[in-house]
Amino acid sequence: MSDFFKGIDPIKYEGPDSSNPMAFRHYDPDRVVMGKRMEDHLRFAICYWHNFCWPGSDPFGGQTFERPWFDDTMEAAKLKADVAFDMFTTLGAPYFCWHDRDIAPEGATLAESNRNVAEIVDLFGEKMDETGLKLLWGTANMFSHRRFMAGAATNPDPDVFAYAAAQVKHAMDMTHKLGGENYVLWGGREGYETLLNTNMQAELDHMGRFLQMVVEYKHKIGFEGTILIEPKPQEPSKHQYDFDVATVYGLLKRAGLEDEVKVNIEVGHAVLANHSFEHEIATAQALGIFGSVDANRNDYQSGWDTDQFPNNVPEMTLAMYYILQGGGFTTGGFNFDAKLRRQSLDAEDLILGHIGGMDVCAQALTAAAAMIEDGTFPRFVEDRYAGWQSPEAQKMLDGTHGFEEIADRVHAEGINPEPKSGKQEYLENIVNRFC
Amino acid sequence: MSDFFKGIDPIKYEGPDSSNPMAFRHYDPDRVVMGKRMEDHLRFAICYWHNFCWPGSDPFGGQTFERPWFDDTMEAAKLKADVAFDMFTTLGAPYFCWHDRDIAPEGATLAESNRNVAEIVDLFGEKMDETGLKLLWGTANMFSHRRFMAGAATNPDPDVFAYAAAQVKHAMDMTHKLGGENYVLWGGREGYETLLNTNMQAELDHMGRFLQMVVEYKHKIGFEGTILIEPKPQEPSKHQYDFDVATVYGLLKRAGLEDEVKVNIEVGHAVLANHSFEHEIATAQALGIFGSVDANRNDYQSGWDTDQFPNNVPEMTLAMYYILQGGGFTTGGFNFDAKLRRQSLDAEDLILGHIGGMDVCAQALTAAAAMIEDGTFPRFVEDRYAGWQSPEAQKMLDGTHGFEEIADRVHAEGINPEPKSGKQEYLENIVNRFC
Amino acid sequence: MSDFFKGIDPIKYEGPDSSNPMAFRHYDPDRVVMGKRMEDHLRFAICYWHNFCWPGSDPFGGQTFERPWFDDTMEAAKLKADVAFDMFTTLGAPYFCWHDRDIAPEGATLAESNRNVAEIVDLFGEKMDETGLKLLWGTANMFSHRRFMAGAATNPDPDVFAYAAAQVKHAMDMTHKLGGENYVLWGGREGYETLLNTNMQAELDHMGRFLQMVVEYKHKIGFEGTILIEPKPQEPSKHQYDFDVATVYGLLKRAGLEDEVKVNIEVGHAVLANHSFEHEIATAQALGIFGSVDANRNDYQSGWDTDQFPNNVPEMTLAMYYILQGGGFTTGGFNFDAKLRRQSLDAEDLILGHIGGMDVCAQALTAAAAMIEDGTFPRFVEDRYAGWQSPEAQKMLDGTHGFEEIADRVHAEGINPEPKSGKQEYLENIVNRFC
Amino acid sequence: MSDFFKGIDPIKYEGPDSSNPMAFRHYDPDRVVMGKRMEDHLRFAICYWHNFCWPGSDPFGGQTFERPWFDDTMEAAKLKADVAFDMFTTLGAPYFCWHDRDIAPEGATLAESNRNVAEIVDLFGEKMDETGLKLLWGTANMFSHRRFMAGAATNPDPDVFAYAAAQVKHAMDMTHKLGGENYVLWGGREGYETLLNTNMQAELDHMGRFLQMVVEYKHKIGFEGTILIEPKPQEPSKHQYDFDVATVYGLLKRAGLEDEVKVNIEVGHAVLANHSFEHEIATAQALGIFGSVDANRNDYQSGWDTDQFPNNVPEMTLAMYYILQGGGFTTGGFNFDAKLRRQSLDAEDLILGHIGGMDVCAQALTAAAAMIEDGTFPRFVEDRYAGWQSPEAQKMLDGTHGFEEIADRVHAEGINPEPKSGKQEYLENIVNRFC
Ligand SMILES: [Co+2]
Ligand SMILES: [Co+2]
Ligand SMILES: [Co+2]
Ligand SMILES: [Co+2]
Ligand SMILES: [Co+2]
Ligand SMILES: [Co+2]
Ligand SMILES: [Co+2]
Ligand SMILES: [Co+2]
Repeated sequence: MSDFFKGIDPIKYEGPDSSNPMAFRHYDPDRVVMGKRMEDHLRFAICYWHNFCWPGSDPFGGQTFERPWFDDTMEAAKLKADVAFDMFTTLGAPYFCWHDRDIAPEGATLAESNRNVAEIVDLFGEKMDETGLKLLWGTANMFSHRRFMAGAATNPDPDVFAYAAAQVKHAMDMTHKLGGENYVLWGGREGYETLLNTNMQAELDHMGRFLQMVVEYKHKIGFEGTILIEPKPQEPSKHQYDFDVATVYGLLKRAGLEDEVKVNIEVGHAVLANHSFEHEIATAQALGIFGSVDANRNDYQSGWDTDQFPNNVPEMTLAMYYILQGGGFTTGGFNFDAKLRRQSLDAEDLILGHIGGMDVCAQALTAAAAMIEDGTFPRFVEDRYAGWQSPEAQKMLDGTHGFEEIADRVHAEGINPEPKSGKQEYLENIVNRFC
Repeated sequence: MSDFFKGIDPIKYEGPDSSNPMAFRHYDPDRVVMGKRMEDHLRFAICYWHNFCWPGSDPFGGQTFERPWFDDTMEAAKLKADVAFDMFTTLGAPYFCWHDRDIAPEGATLAESNRNVAEIVDLFGEKMDETGLKLLWGTANMFSHRRFMAGAATNPDPDVFAYAAAQVKHAMDMTHKLGGENYVLWGGREGYETLLNTNMQAELDHMGRFLQMVVEYKHKIGFEGTILIEPKPQEPSKHQYDFDVATVYGLLKRAGLEDEVKVNIEVGHAVLANHSFEHEIATAQALGIFGSVDANRNDYQSGWDTDQFPNNVPEMTLAMYYILQGGGFTTGGFNFDAKLRRQSLDAEDLILGHIGGMDVCAQALTAAAAMIEDGTFPRFVEDRYAGWQSPEAQKMLDGTHGFEEIADRVHAEGINPEPKSGKQEYLENIVNRFC
Repeated sequence: MSDFFKGIDPIKYEGPDSSNPMAFRHYDPDRVVMGKRMEDHLRFAICYWHNFCWPGSDPFGGQTFERPWFDDTMEAAKLKADVAFDMFTTLGAPYFCWHDRDIAPEGATLAESNRNVAEIVDLFGEKMDETGLKLLWGTANMFSHRRFMAGAATNPDPDVFAYAAAQVKHAMDMTHKLGGENYVLWGGREGYETLLNTNMQAELDHMGRFLQMVVEYKHKIGFEGTILIEPKPQEPSKHQYDFDVATVYGLLKRAGLEDEVKVNIEVGHAVLANHSFEHEIATAQALGIFGSVDANRNDYQSGWDTDQFPNNVPEMTLAMYYILQGGGFTTGGFNFDAKLRRQSLDAEDLILGHIGGMDVCAQALTAAAAMIEDGTFPRFVEDRYAGWQSPEAQKMLDGTHGFEEIADRVHAEGINPEPKSGKQEYLENIVNRFC
Repeated sequence: MSDFFKGIDPIKYEGPDSSNPMAFRHYDPDRVVMGKRMEDHLRFAICYWHNFCWPGSDPFGGQTFERPWFDDTMEAAKLKADVAFDMFTTLGAPYFCWHDRDIAPEGATLAESNRNVAEIVDLFGEKMDETGLKLLWGTANMFSHRRFMAGAATNPDPDVFAYAAAQVKHAMDMTHKLGGENYVLWGGREGYETLLNTNMQAELDHMGRFLQMVVEYKHKIGFEGTILIEPKPQEPSKHQYDFDVATVYGLLKRAGLEDEVKVNIEVGHAVLANHSFEHEIATAQALGIFGSVDANRNDYQSGWDTDQFPNNVPEMTLAMYYILQGGGFTTGGFNFDAKLRRQSLDAEDLILGHIGGMDVCAQALTAAAAMIEDGTFPRFVEDRYAGWQSPEAQKMLDGTHGFEEIADRVHAEGINPEPKSGKQEYLENIVNRFC
């Protein structure tokens, strides 16, 4: 046990009337909602990178955080692991997540980097045994080092592709070893800076092939977790091929992988792609590729990824409603890919950010569950589309009728449909009854 | 011949030094560029709707244009057709385009509407024979009338779906009759206003089925033109399912239609989806679905579709470069889905807008052709990806090698790739040498 | 009493547990919050234009609403007035607002238009006496008619300026006659479409002069209400001179009117200018020009003014917090410049939209009041700036010390400030305790 | 002379037909345009920070550039100065610009930092004498160090305000010593991250007072250059008080400094504030505060400051047109606050970026000059507003007539203005004749 969080006890649920900033007001892990414990619904995960690796810099300013483990040694990496597990257990989150380069320093060769990662993974294994903590997902950092400046799987240099393949193989091995429930790919540099130097078709082909190898390797090693892609439209690249859920779906179809790979949807990335979070969730469910989520939001007035803790209950409630309606998570969960504001210097700020985020999600869960149990929304939608159950409607869908038969019927029956109110305000008001 | 454009003679090419605003400075139809006449490269089309139907209104203001044909009668429709053909021939554009509801008034029933359309289509046939003008594409307006307020193919009411099917059937018949080279679908209401009243999966299924019927019917009637979808991310709907090229590709794959349907890319819709125009073109080519373009741009500071005439040669040059590199148009062309600013009240403004747009495209064509003939760009890209020709690289792509073999090689050879300059500024400077 | 809202009784407060969609769950006019009745805090107003004049059109579609008063006659205008007052009283809102052209048809001359307006204003006077309803503000529509297509006060044609002056004079007279508590100017066409045909300096001068005449006339007629400008950055114009609160402040200073004119801040216009609503409120208060608000929000993913009813309580709470902290409204209030979605066809949808909006504001009011009474926020801010109370700090502000004295002190004392946590997550969590 | 640019000779003008990437095709310093040498019109400046200090990092990636002077020593600072002057002379730009922290390492105390800066400033003095290079402006970096994380002049801690004052004093002294022609303030952290911890009114007051001290000190030391503020709406802060030109104007009026301070307008910052570059220039001229420009553009699809070299001639031409129309620069000039793409690793890329940017500006200058000499645009605008010369119009402006007199005249004369075409397409076409 490190002393970084000295004086901070494990966070307890104290109920909505508590004014203790270091307590949960809504997240009560054992409370049963729709027949399942809150903890099992939400499957919270805490990320390594923003909490323990990011120095507080922004494009115009340097490090603001002063952390004893900010050093490029294995010793510092172990101290960082101690602090990380202190934080995980203080918060009582059941899962954590990492990139390979978060947890151990890069070595002079990939082999040395791998050994560094493996050593910390062993340490993680021990700590997971001690604490009961689980790994939601692992991933490989293929964007920070200058070798990846022009992409990993989509790099014009096949040696970078090869290097990335070898790195991902090891990250998958490590994820598998720790019983990770998913493996994530985020393609922040899988895109382009300028079309002028880019062969887009080749890059899409290479990316598809890389993904196929991920799936092949998963099966080879018996990894039973889900492979997830995290869409993001841009930043750091001018354009990223995993733009949004619908785009990723097309890429998966192109590579024949739509049954093998799902998406990890981040609130902030949805917003950068000019979608609502619930849109991305509903789209993924409609397309059959919903996997997991990153709960961190963006600032609506900032044009870059601000990765803030969620703090708006009605917004999160809509997202939660679609998650629950689709049956909730299987291997996925709620990860906080959120970072403190760079002015939030105190150790306790790390804890406070997560308390707020977890409480918002918990409150959204109970609100969304109430919406579902109330039944107004599902019934409204069912009624609105009820006409499609008629035999004539079914014939249009099942191929019995084509344009000619339909046109004949329209003319014969003089069909001239009268519109019905969409009742948007009515429905929006009802949402507010629950959150 | 109407007298709406009285005093305006057919527009002639006068060369770059002309200061005559009523002459082309760059568009010289017979000039040969890369072995083909300019007219045959550009395949300009002029649209019916914005030029002859739109009253100059905006969300805060009513009609500004005063046109003698603004009336809901067949007589007015015929006057409108006269003026339209006067304008087409004045400009010397080889093609035109229409929605069914642009050309003839809506009747009391669909049958009456269809008869109205058919009557004007016959008139068009005569005028096309007289003038040599051709039809680039036809389309059905399934967004203006209140019956379509909640969508056409994606309407919750199957009667609207049926009505739309009958309407599209007729619009396809009319397009076919006039020898149209494409048929377009723009799904401005195929989307949602609020997820709360929407079954997205059902709507996507219905939309896919509708599109399959379009393709089936095309084959049935022997229409040899291309079926085109025009992507747009939003407006009028909050979200449209044909968001951008990549999204449309996914929907086509989902419906098994990626070899049957292509895209009509509009500059302004690309920008609304937070893409550059050339991005959408390059994406469509990489995915094999490039069809046609709408040349009208948006204002970069306005968040809605401004549909302005193109006026930036360097921007259009990049688009033209990718079009030429992909082999140019087959059935597609350059349509001007552009409208005058609502303060541009004069008859001559209609002509001036098109002169400017056609000249920009012509100048971009010669610039892009020079870029291709110069060869620097294609060579640069080829060199940048040359490493992929090596046997080891090919094995990674063709499935011979998977993660394990690649990782072995990376470790054995100590692969640690050194990045190379992407030379973006160098390349951007060279573009400016040509435009 | 018209029968448009037949079957809809006056809306009552039923408390948070009510599931009656036609009841208030939070708006309880007589409930006392911070020593004042809710009604007196919120001062709700209902607008004429969106509710009774807008036909449900959008840039791609025509009328969806079918209202018996949609006609250009005085008779229809009177029916419209009946329905409007039915709605005001059904909702129990204390105020309403109008543009001159909302309430009566435009005549052949300005004089006739004025007579039409005056006749309806007389009718309003009677109805206000009967019902106790009050006028929050009046305004003149100087953007719909084609004569204003290039602006009113900023039109290149001085006759339009003159026409606008005469029109505003009459609208001010009518507002004064009805005891209006404010008079509003929204400059949707006071801007430009292209700089190429614009003399910006002349237009800014003309606009300043126009505004001075408004103020002169106000004093002349003894109007004691507040003159308000409603900022909006764009739409319908490409650029509007009243871009946002800070821009309006500069224009007021330029015209010497910063003590005479205040702002009416709309949620959606704040968002279009890339600000939060609370930012615009806080800015107006810091600059001393806060006046009134339009409570209607935009969709964060749409790039135009969607004018939707507010539905997010935490967001509205922040706005309300700054309003209360600044002392609340004097002559201003909460206007709903909100329109139904065009698919919301039913008469009851008009009522439902307002119930939802009023409830959101009421809930936000109680939350914000609790935040203020709790005191954590004001105290936190006071503590954060407490250093400025020191004598040395005061000398820097009051002009005693300049750069040289300060630099001497910095070097002499070796000042090297250590940053303190900004505690953003902590503060955001606390907001959520109240809403 | 360092050997960083070994093998690169001074860049020469070779004319538009040159295909030498290391030559100017349009920038010919001695060519006379509108009676003035190109060099004297454009007054190009090259910045220190992006070229010599920025490591190529972005929010998701580390250093890509490998420069021998990347070290925190005075020795490295001197090497950096050598390379910088090599680059300035290679490009033949007449001016350069710096932040204090660009040129010398931060010391343990402000006094030590100042001594480091002063030592390099002495070296600059020698090099300027040798080369004839001049200083366009100096500025102080008050945003990178963690002490400034919550602002400099607007920091809640008065010690930071004091520290900033002492730092700016020294930066002004150094700028004055080198004969700098302007002194710039960019308030990247003068804003807020969250309103919740902010006293906006106090911060605006403090910022105003700071600016007054800048002006007082300027006069005290006899600095005859211009004080410039560089507006930017956001990034790094969520909101910056110097949002755009119009906002800065209001702040200057509030502080009584509108005759003492002008603006330095950056293309990219204009775009971030949802303006065109020419809008900001025209606004500054209309408000009398136009000073200088940063020529670097943003990517229209990226929501952050990309600081790219300008590469679009028609866009730059419009900006140049307004600059020339306003009389051109006095103390200002064209600074390149542009950075290479982080993949542009080669030394020559630094030169290529500037060649391209300088050529674009030169081409825009000749195009804009031709537009002015042609006279169509000024004449068109003059004609459009010609009605304001009439006596009746003048009476409305000069206060002779108020609302009553004007209304009387409108009714008496039956004024009912008929709109005239704004001719936007005509004008846009003519622009394309010149560029
Ligand atoms: Co993110
Ligand atoms: Co994420
Ligand atoms: Co469009
Ligand atoms: Co189009
Ligand atoms: Co609005
Ligand atoms: Co409003
Ligand atoms: Co910048
Ligand atoms: Co700058």
